[in-house]
Amino acid sequence: MNSLTAAQIAALCNGKVEGNASISVSSFGKIEEAKAGDLAFLANPKYEEFLYSTQADIIIINESLELKQPISATLIRVKDAYSAFAGLLAQYQQLQASMLTGRQEPVYIHDTAKIGEQVFLGAFAYIGKNVTIGKNVKIHPQVYIGDNVTVGDNTVLYPGVKIYHQTIIGKNVIVHAGAVIGGDGFGFAPQADGTYAKVPQIGNVIIEDNVEIGANATIDRATIGSTKILAGAKIDNLVQVAHNVEIGSYTVVAAQAGISGSTKLGKGVMVGGQVGIVGHIHIGDGAKINAQSGVSKSIEPGKAVTGSPAFDYTSALRSQSAARRLPDMEKRIAELEKLVAALNSK
Amino acid sequence: MNSLTAAQIAALCNGKVEGNASISVSSFGKIEEAKAGDLAFLANPKYEEFLYSTQADIIIINESLELKQPISATLIRVKDAYSAFAGLLAQYQQLQASMLTGRQEPVYIHDTAKIGEQVFLGAFAYIGKNVTIGKNVKIHPQVYIGDNVTVGDNTVLYPGVKIYHQTIIGKNVIVHAGAVIGGDGFGFAPQADGTYAKVPQIGNVIIEDNVEIGANATIDRATIGSTKILAGAKIDNLVQVAHNVEIGSYTVVAAQAGISGSTKLGKGVMVGGQVGIVGHIHIGDGAKINAQSGVSKSIEPGKAVTGSPAFDYTSALRSQSAARRLPDMEKRIAELEKLVAALNSK
Amino acid sequence: MNSLTAAQIAALCNGKVEGNASISVSSFGKIEEAKAGDLAFLANPKYEEFLYSTQADIIIINESLELKQPISATLIRVKDAYSAFAGLLAQYQQLQASMLTGRQEPVYIHDTAKIGEQVFLGAFAYIGKNVTIGKNVKIHPQVYIGDNVTVGDNTVLYPGVKIYHQTIIGKNVIVHAGAVIGGDGFGFAPQADGTYAKVPQIGNVIIEDNVEIGANATIDRATIGSTKILAGAKIDNLVQVAHNVEIGSYTVVAAQAGISGSTKLGKGVMVGGQVGIVGHIHIGDGAKINAQSGVSKSIEPGKAVTGSPAFDYTSALRSQSAARRLPDMEKRIAELEKLVAALNSK
Repeated sequence: MNSLTAAQIAALCNGKVEGNASISVSSFGKIEEAKAGDLAFLANPKYEEFLYSTQADIIIINESLELKQPISATLIRVKDAYSAFAGLLAQYQQLQASMLTGRQEPVYIHDTAKIGEQVFLGAFAYIGKNVTIGKNVKIHPQVYIGDNVTVGDNTVLYPGVKIYHQTIIGKNVIVHAGAVIGGDGFGFAPQADGTYAKVPQIGNVIIEDNVEIGANATIDRATIGSTKILAGAKIDNLVQVAHNVEIGSYTVVAAQAGISGSTKLGKGVMVGGQVGIVGHIHIGDGAKINAQSGVSKSIEPGKAVTGSPAFDYTSALRSQSAARRLPDMEKRIAELEKLVAALNSK
Repeated sequence: MNSLTAAQIAALCNGKVEGNASISVSSFGKIEEAKAGDLAFLANPKYEEFLYSTQADIIIINESLELKQPISATLIRVKDAYSAFAGLLAQYQQLQASMLTGRQEPVYIHDTAKIGEQVFLGAFAYIGKNVTIGKNVKIHPQVYIGDNVTVGDNTVLYPGVKIYHQTIIGKNVIVHAGAVIGGDGFGFAPQADGTYAKVPQIGNVIIEDNVEIGANATIDRATIGSTKILAGAKIDNLVQVAHNVEIGSYTVVAAQAGISGSTKLGKGVMVGGQVGIVGHIHIGDGAKINAQSGVSKSIEPGKAVTGSPAFDYTSALRSQSAARRLPDMEKRIAELEKLVAALNSK
Repeated sequence: MNSLTAAQIAALCNGKVEGNASISVSSFGKIEEAKAGDLAFLANPKYEEFLYSTQADIIIINESLELKQPISATLIRVKDAYSAFAGLLAQYQQLQASMLTGRQEPVYIHDTAKIGEQVFLGAFAYIGKNVTIGKNVKIHPQVYIGDNVTVGDNTVLYPGVKIYHQTIIGKNVIVHAGAVIGGDGFGFAPQADGTYAKVPQIGNVIIEDNVEIGANATIDRATIGSTKILAGAKIDNLVQVAHNVEIGSYTVVAAQAGISGSTKLGKGVMVGGQVGIVGHIHIGDGAKINAQSGVSKSIEPGKAVTGSPAFDYTSALRSQSAARRLPDMEKRIAELEKLVAALNSK
């Protein structure tokens, strides 16, 4: 970041300076690791000890915090230190992103493509037939956009993203490097002779506004119709979304999870890392699926599950805990059998 | 698709028109979602209700179906509606693919590469030394083909596929975007000082005819010899195939499964999503491995397994079911211990 | 490889020729599969039978080995046949790699980038602002190197590797095709209205010397600070490393494992395939985590764990074994209940 004074930072986040208002910083740091020239923050009381030892030059803290000893750094007091710091980071990132415009060379752009204002087009990017790109979109180097794709305003496609034909992407979407959107669903019809015939996959993928998709994730096109990622959903790295799946609004899917064909996830669902979900089921709004679970049946709204196969979270934890005592239980049964046999032979 | 009349579609799929033979459609739709201008089909009786409410203009149905009420759409009656529809889709896709020819610019082609007739070469594709490309191959943009690679006729390499040197790919193979074929196997020899020496991986990968490989899948080259994917095998997205693995003919491996080094899978094996298989074992022909299983031992032909560690499917389901009653079983044991102690002290 | 005579090979590996010293080979083969013109080796006594049937023209064997019958191939006797063979492979690979220099066209190189001597730059590679590339680095085609990245001497970046801005990569690092380094960590702050605000990820990734990273692996940048892969660590294909993770020196992470945010792995840890590790924990030096384990708590140095949730390896195996007898245990409990009831009613 460019150098900013404590006074400037306080102005940006509605804070009050305590200390040297003209001292300046040019980078961000964690309070426990920060060095001279860094801006840090303290929100979690667990980290308060670092407030008195950090090398950071400026620290954003809650206005309510009472100091236990003098501090050499300049403080900026705000209502909520975490929000203020995150807000500064977001402003900083937006500023950086907005500077990214223009067209590098070479790129491949089909004659029929329509490209909006202030779009960044990185080198070796490919834009196919009848593609429509909105305003202010950032298409990083080596991105592939197939025929008839639409990309909404302010969307960011990181290097090497591959978007197959017919995909529709909304506004303010972020897709990270290497993600593949719109590849063929995995559909093969078994033949009498033991071979398979490919089932053509002629649907598409629709990604609504404010979705974020992680690096090297794969979202398959529908057999017919659309695979849908609804507004605000967040998909982590290396996630697999099969054909005709629908992922609800503001649903979060952690890394390496996989969702099989035609399954629908409701709103605000939380899917842990490495979870597997079978096809053709429904996960209710607000359900929580613990990491590594294997979900084989539909889940009611709001319910939490864990395990493979997954069942009710609390019961499953009890079973898991009992499972650790299994060898002991087996001995107790053997002991009981002996005792009962002895009683019976009396 | 281009606009087709009911009469033309009936001709393509050996059907009989019932209704307006001159009405035309230009897209495919699911019967429950189709809109005006769509061609739909009805095969599964569960969906019959939609036959009477769909907006589709033309519907392909089984010749045996008896209507329960009049229908406004034009019908095309065939022996097997699903096969007829799938056949139309396949024809449509082939037609589209066959139109893809020529060479976009820029591409990198080494002087020594031999490229067959009617090959499509997308922009930013890379063709290394001594590469041989068959007839009618589709090399999409940003594909990388390393030195000494051979690619058979009619094969399709989607955008960003990376094929390391020495790989041999057969005919009619499909590789989806971002897949990496021929990367180094994961081999390191532990040294006395706790470090590792890399074991050179100088084998290659052989992919036979009619194989399909999913997006962002990784197939490692052999240490020595070849990693082999035999004819007709289907590998889904994000699957990991380690060095010296052999995957049998028409074996199907679902998304995110991983197969460790030197393991051999027979013919017609079914591997579920997120399955892990250890190295140096053998999976017999026709074996079925349930999703998320962890396979640590060889499996007999035709056997089904589940669980991690995996064992016989039916027994494993019984154990999984009993595991849910574990907390209850523990209480029953405690109760028995009390009763037996009481009996003993009588 | 170029053709080498038995005499030349013996010179390279300090061996003694037995047989025709002028016979030559031009490829490597496994003893059980080798064909005429191949160089093979025999180290594992289990494979000795192949010594008498192999088609290989030259075989490297241990000097201590006593032949049981005459052999037509030329033998080269060395102290340790495996090491000698691996050494030859390594020499061969280094020779091949060292021949890779120069610059293919087109490439994109920002004016401000500094590129060392003897660097190979493949076609369609992208080098951003203020990038520094060391000596003898191999940047394969279609690699993306974002702004302010540093790459140390002798590092190899395979085709399509994507390195986001600010990443620091050491010397002698190997990154396989499609790996993404420095993508945003998965951080979203839940808002009162059920939506999420993106938490800016402004840290970076640091990869130390001698690290190897597999194809399509993803290593996220830190929220603040650095995600770190320490010297000599080996990361397999499709592994997910989340923001602010630290992976210790000579730690090995097998394919498709995932490590959640801020977790630290010590030195010499072994992480099996498809393992999942939760965030904010510490895995002690030399710990061993069995494949598919789900690690939810910190692990002591040197300890081995398995299962999901993971616990002590030996106890877990005992529980897993007992779990297979669960249906039987349940019957035994029922039988005991009957017997005890009968005793009580006497």
